[in-house]
Amino acid sequence: MFELLFFFAILILSSNAAVQDFCVADLKGAESPAGYSCKAVTKVTVNDFVYSGLSAAGNTSNIIKAAVSPAFAAQFPGLNGLGLSAARLDLAPSGVVPFHTHPGASEVLLVVQGLITAAFVSSANTVYLKTLKKGELMVFPQGLLHFQVNAAGVTSVAYVFFSSSNPGLQITDFALFANDLSTKLVEATTFLDEAQIKKLKGVLGGTG
Amino acid sequence: MFELLFFFAILILSSNAAVQDFCVADLKGAESPAGYSCKAVTKVTVNDFVYSGLSAAGNTSNIIKAAVSPAFAAQFPGLNGLGLSAARLDLAPSGVVPFHTHPGASEVLLVVQGLITAAFVSSANTVYLKTLKKGELMVFPQGLLHFQVNAAGVTSVAYVFFSSSNPGLQITDFALFANDLSTKLVEATTFLDEAQIKKLKGVLGGTG
Amino acid sequence: MFELLFFFAILILSSNAAVQDFCVADLKGAESPAGYSCKAVTKVTVNDFVYSGLSAAGNTSNIIKAAVSPAFAAQFPGLNGLGLSAARLDLAPSGVVPFHTHPGASEVLLVVQGLITAAFVSSANTVYLKTLKKGELMVFPQGLLHFQVNAAGVTSVAYVFFSSSNPGLQITDFALFANDLSTKLVEATTFLDEAQIKKLKGVLGGTG
Amino acid sequence: MFELLFFFAILILSSNAAVQDFCVADLKGAESPAGYSCKAVTKVTVNDFVYSGLSAAGNTSNIIKAAVSPAFAAQFPGLNGLGLSAARLDLAPSGVVPFHTHPGASEVLLVVQGLITAAFVSSANTVYLKTLKKGELMVFPQGLLHFQVNAAGVTSVAYVFFSSSNPGLQITDFALFANDLSTKLVEATTFLDEAQIKKLKGVLGGTG
Amino acid sequence: MFELLFFFAILILSSNAAVQDFCVADLKGAESPAGYSCKAVTKVTVNDFVYSGLSAAGNTSNIIKAAVSPAFAAQFPGLNGLGLSAARLDLAPSGVVPFHTHPGASEVLLVVQGLITAAFVSSANTVYLKTLKKGELMVFPQGLLHFQVNAAGVTSVAYVFFSSSNPGLQITDFALFANDLSTKLVEATTFLDEAQIKKLKGVLGGTG
Amino acid sequence: MFELLFFFAILILSSNAAVQDFCVADLKGAESPAGYSCKAVTKVTVNDFVYSGLSAAGNTSNIIKAAVSPAFAAQFPGLNGLGLSAARLDLAPSGVVPFHTHPGASEVLLVVQGLITAAFVSSANTVYLKTLKKGELMVFPQGLLHFQVNAAGVTSVAYVFFSSSNPGLQITDFALFANDLSTKLVEATTFLDEAQIKKLKGVLGGTG
Repeated sequence: MFELLFFFAILILSSNAAVQDFCVADLKGAESPAGYSCKAVTKVTVNDFVYSGLSAAGNTSNIIKAAVSPAFAAQFPGLNGLGLSAARLDLAPSGVVPFHTHPGASEVLLVVQGLITAAFVSSANTVYLKTLKKGELMVFPQGLLHFQVNAAGVTSVAYVFFSSSNPGLQITDFALFANDLSTKLVEATTFLDEAQIKKLKGVLGGTG
Repeated sequence: MFELLFFFAILILSSNAAVQDFCVADLKGAESPAGYSCKAVTKVTVNDFVYSGLSAAGNTSNIIKAAVSPAFAAQFPGLNGLGLSAARLDLAPSGVVPFHTHPGASEVLLVVQGLITAAFVSSANTVYLKTLKKGELMVFPQGLLHFQVNAAGVTSVAYVFFSSSNPGLQITDFALFANDLSTKLVEATTFLDEAQIKKLKGVLGGTG
Repeated sequence: MFELLFFFAILILSSNAAVQDFCVADLKGAESPAGYSCKAVTKVTVNDFVYSGLSAAGNTSNIIKAAVSPAFAAQFPGLNGLGLSAARLDLAPSGVVPFHTHPGASEVLLVVQGLITAAFVSSANTVYLKTLKKGELMVFPQGLLHFQVNAAGVTSVAYVFFSSSNPGLQITDFALFANDLSTKLVEATTFLDEAQIKKLKGVLGGTG
Repeated sequence: MFELLFFFAILILSSNAAVQDFCVADLKGAESPAGYSCKAVTKVTVNDFVYSGLSAAGNTSNIIKAAVSPAFAAQFPGLNGLGLSAARLDLAPSGVVPFHTHPGASEVLLVVQGLITAAFVSSANTVYLKTLKKGELMVFPQGLLHFQVNAAGVTSVAYVFFSSSNPGLQITDFALFANDLSTKLVEATTFLDEAQIKKLKGVLGGTG
Repeated sequence: MFELLFFFAILILSSNAAVQDFCVADLKGAESPAGYSCKAVTKVTVNDFVYSGLSAAGNTSNIIKAAVSPAFAAQFPGLNGLGLSAARLDLAPSGVVPFHTHPGASEVLLVVQGLITAAFVSSANTVYLKTLKKGELMVFPQGLLHFQVNAAGVTSVAYVFFSSSNPGLQITDFALFANDLSTKLVEATTFLDEAQIKKLKGVLGGTG
Repeated sequence: MFELLFFFAILILSSNAAVQDFCVADLKGAESPAGYSCKAVTKVTVNDFVYSGLSAAGNTSNIIKAAVSPAFAAQFPGLNGLGLSAARLDLAPSGVVPFHTHPGASEVLLVVQGLITAAFVSSANTVYLKTLKKGELMVFPQGLLHFQVNAAGVTSVAYVFFSSSNPGLQITDFALFANDLSTKLVEATTFLDEAQIKKLKGVLGGTG
């Protein structure tokens, strides 16, 4: 009898089970300014909330000797709309994540291996620079230019976390030199020498 | 002539009539992290902004001697995206709304009949407890555990209002005992005795 | 021994007890765009989260035969920053809450006694009008003009709830006629006749 | 070799190119409380981010001798979700933008030609009034009643900017007199005389 | 000459250097619903943006065989207002972080050592459970009950990140049993047996 | 009698006059993550909501032949917390506002004189470039790199508006070259040649 009545209570109380605790991204659905549309709850499993893509090292056999592996909503759909995302940084000896910004998020970095020198520059052009050891955290306020370089003789690894499920990533060099913006306009708007611009356009595949 | 010119003015000034004053939920449309998609304005009527479902008492013939009737966006589509929703609490003598949280909203309670003892517990484990009379309000800050119990010999009634059109409702007992989480894990993560867990799993229909 | 160790755990786990679950308004402290500054947690009691000021009827012996009693953060400090507030409407027979807006919040109204005819007007100038019975809810989207009039031969009472602890209240008649804005400018910007403006300025204490 | 490796770096680093920097409105797609759904990035061009519709004067041959030309997300899709929009005001001699509110945004006005007298009224019914010259700015806080009138003998022009891509526009006269709300209810909720209401309903095309 | 002119440009362009890129918490200043007030920029150094407190293991010699070390704004002032914070979890063999919620934030967990079984429960009482390996991430949506238990024979370590600089932490057992809420009310609102409640009150130092 | 009663109504209805319609910045008060603290309403005048500082041309006798004059909350206190701010751009012939970002806001630009070529670069490194005429608008999404250059033989002028009262301004050249970040680190994180860096550090007053 006790049980029977309790089941009745469940029916009443869970009539609002349709609430939206989360919104797992339906990557094929429409996007809105708030993110991806939601996958049907009936199709959601724990695997939508777990991401294994950052457990292996990224490939650092490249010119920057570094890899940035994102876990944004597009890679990790369970994050959609929850105001968080992540990435893994692998920095081989002399590896560098060049100057970049995240237009839509602040970032916290956690060193898990090696030594990393990181810095950000404020609007007042002040540099906040520190070499971080394993287990140390550093925060980079939203939208400000920052970089990370390996400060150890061995590979260093960090995980970074963002205050948005879609933080964006704009690498200054790529934005300036890896597209068809004319050398003349780059020169006028950066004060770099023409030869320097053409050299980096060559390296990064830019034209114009 | 005066009239004619004014009609012309209307045309000019109302060319921006397509603004989004509200977004009545299209319950069959896609959901996003911001809520339901919007019903076409041409199909919206005053009835989308009115809800009569809380005017009758909920059925309290159950083990908690209480009923919680929600008016969230899923029941009351006009609320969608407006940062508000409501529910009605009916508490028969000895009725109880057990410990629960709303993951996505703060709550204000208004007693409209009887006497209700309500409390919430802060992160510092302090209990804020009060017995409320008709016409009194109490606020429960976002996400904190709280409960309401009837403090009168007769049925008590309250209306509650939330700071989200989709506040969520997680009843602690149901979360712990009304699913297939193994007794062993419940024991490890709550320090409750195995017998106690099995008893409540039995009552609430949990397995494992 | 078991107890001793557990107390140790408490120390560790509650080292973050300083988290901000709520921010009870310090009405004498500074205000910011986010609301009032917070009262020290050590001075907070349950009475900060309870408000009794809406349990008695407001005085309706006035020209509008109505009373609007607010429970915003300034009256009910526990609401500060929680995205919610309330008010009580008492409407004697023929009582009216004239056309008004809340610049910073949407509103849900609950009739608790009598019959109330309420309406709001959209940006497209459409009127959404309904006569509401006891227990019915109506939502007024943010910032739109709306009113409530008593539709019963007896006193009607409603409670309203807002999606901000500081919703604001701008009564159109008062904004137009209860200050020193010159009759000429009111005439130019409302198309009302000069005599009409002067009459209402007289009634509402406006000058100019 | 240097180049080859760098291209490899590009591939790695731009694997998160799918981030959402913007959400150009797909005006035929679903709307949500966060705005319009997004046009596919592959179909976005610079023209989505540029709007020429405010470069020509609006038609002021009407009773208010003024034109309000909006550039909200519905007209200028690149603004969708970015928290900004604009409008152009043309005021012929004696032109007036009558008392109105924007339910969902604050506004900044920039005079680019002539002289404009503008004012807003606070919740405390205080009038903040100023005559503005070319190049001067004035801010109107969210949701408050305000107006603009030409204070020059020639045409004056201003551009206004809003803190939302969908600010709304509710002109008080139109909300009160340009629909089917009964004269009796308008009278009861505005204290205007019946004759005055009927006159303005006639001018603005209202019925009832 | 070139240099001289450029310095002039700097003066002009950096006249807005007073912008607020960040708001390092002044822990002795006033709090508002938006967080702590800001330390003067002239007193800010890189050390405000770096936190070393999570590099050492927490003390797990306690009944839960676990330690939770927070890096919220109160510990790591540079986070204030940036929508991010962190904590370190140390779990000795059989260690457990009991069922808890964060009232104001979603959480992402990163395993850096060992194996951790983690789960959260939705409003619909569904359990999302997974055993996570080193380098794997799991997200826990805002406000929902969740736990972490060591699934390895050795110590496991994780770092967690939150979508708020002040996420809060409410451990269900502590909220129910570590204060003066009367046994009778706990019994009524949890359906636990009196003996069970008294036992846990004894362990956790509760009274009543 | 009618008047007397109405005055009574005013007293009742305006008891909530203490609402916060706006929060004019008290530039000497504390700052919080939400902005400046508020000036007492009794000290607020219309001049707090009006700003004349952008009506005169900025001085373009400098190396960039341009001036950027801000009207952020620090210059225009009435904007504080309202989600809007502005700036004036003066571009002499060949004048340039170099590549920069606003970390905390989107921007809309309005050309009021001359011709301006403007562009922004997306996270996918796509350039959105357009030459804008008088009266045309262009939007630059939050945090993305953008620039403006004079495309006319005469002085061009634009006003820009931001979606925050504190948008920030980070000019890439200044962030890279106008501080003490070592040439070696700039080289490593930008791939620019050492000579180029030293040249620009010389021009911009950087050291190291």
